Amino acid sequence: MDRPSDTPRGQQDSRPRVPRATVVRLPQYLRFLRDAEAAENHYLSGARIAAALKIEPAQVRKDLAVTGIASRPGVGFCASELIYAIELYLGWNNTTDAFLVGAGHLGAALAGYAGFQRYGLNIVAVFDLDDHKVGRKLCGKPVHPFDQIAAKAQEMHVHMGIITVPSGAAQDVADVLVLAGIRAIWNFTPVELDVPPNIVVEKTDLAASLAVLSRRLADALRPSR
Amino acid sequence: MDRPSDTPRGQQDSRPRVPRATVVRLPQYLRFLRDAEAAENHYLSGARIAAALKIEPAQVRKDLAVTGIASRPGVGFCASELIYAIELYLGWNNTTDAFLVGAGHLGAALAGYAGFQRYGLNIVAVFDLDDHKVGRKLCGKPVHPFDQIAAKAQEMHVHMGIITVPSGAAQDVADVLVLAGIRAIWNFTPVELDVPPNIVVEKTDLAASLAVLSRRLADALRPSR
Repeated sequence: MDRPSDTPRGQQDSRPRVPRATVVRLPQYLRFLRDAEAAENHYLSGARIAAALKIEPAQVRKDLAVTGIASRPGVGFCASELIYAIELYLGWNNTTDAFLVGAGHLGAALAGYAGFQRYGLNIVAVFDLDDHKVGRKLCGKPVHPFDQIAAKAQEMHVHMGIITVPSGAAQDVADVLVLAGIRAIWNFTPVELDVPPNIVVEKTDLAASLAVLSRRLADALRPSR
Repeated sequence: MDRPSDTPRGQQDSRPRVPRATVVRLPQYLRFLRDAEAAENHYLSGARIAAALKIEPAQVRKDLAVTGIASRPGVGFCASELIYAIELYLGWNNTTDAFLVGAGHLGAALAGYAGFQRYGLNIVAVFDLDDHKVGRKLCGKPVHPFDQIAAKAQEMHVHMGIITVPSGAAQDVADVLVLAGIRAIWNFTPVELDVPPNIVVEKTDLAASLAVLSRRLADALRPSR
């Protein structure tokens, strides 16, 4: 969750490197702009966006510069233009189909999370190693046997895999996903996956967030205050 | 998810500031050390820990220094000593009781996640605004009406609240949690919560992780490679 944003290793790229922190903030801008559009606010100054999102105005300018859209003097940013540019930048203008492996509670939460559609993510199929779960539906998505994943990936042209299996199975699942042609893995297990350098991995480790929160709560509750 | 680690504002602290990235890595060390202990490996060199976790040895030394435990020449770190020190540092030696607000899929995933117990987190009660969910159990935890939260917080001496409600309700829930005496909030909604400065907030925004993954996948799939 905390690695810097890299362009994939070995890839030449003439564009300036965009900090991970900027990419992380883009969904915030997107949500704000969509709400503004819905409320018929079609033009917004950088200062207004900054105030609403509690981000420094200079940072807002820097962040939004990656989209190539500039604020117009006296008018501000055109919301629809900026929405389109952010979606394009994140690849969210086209839907990305994804497989989810692991039909447990977290898998169900993600499979049932309607919000992903707003971010261009569509979980098209769920896989599980447990025969008892196969054939059932998880939040409306069919659960397939795990050994069908390579065939389904080819058939459905899927490039992204989401791993929500127990830690002990995570590396094996990643290996199979890579063999099946998956290029991007969203890893919800705490395991540091070993994958070829051309595979993109993003880890969401709940324990890491909890560690930060626990430590800060311990500080806040210290009697010495 | 990406803010720097702060000691709470207004608090004087003579200890050196520990980087958020270090705190985020501590659960990784803890998992590795617990597994090592279970496998009867009671002493481990910094180099071995570094290799296993794919972290630079110099970084491992820096990270583990926050616990106050040093590696012994020719012997390495004592696993049990280091486990205890990390748990103590994170406040995971004592169980933290938490309330969870929002009995949807994500709430169920978190309420049912047995792994939290290893991190000293115990979700003692679930609350929901929806009367239909009240009185039922969510992964074995009773679901209470939301308006009982202040009474229950006092009764059960709970300091942490986890918010998994829809975005539109997040700020209202946070306000009630603060009034109820909650000191730390784990926010799973994308909303930037407005809370008093003495309240600790950690946000886990799935859209932020997805943005990074989507962008890197788009780069990886570009035909120009």
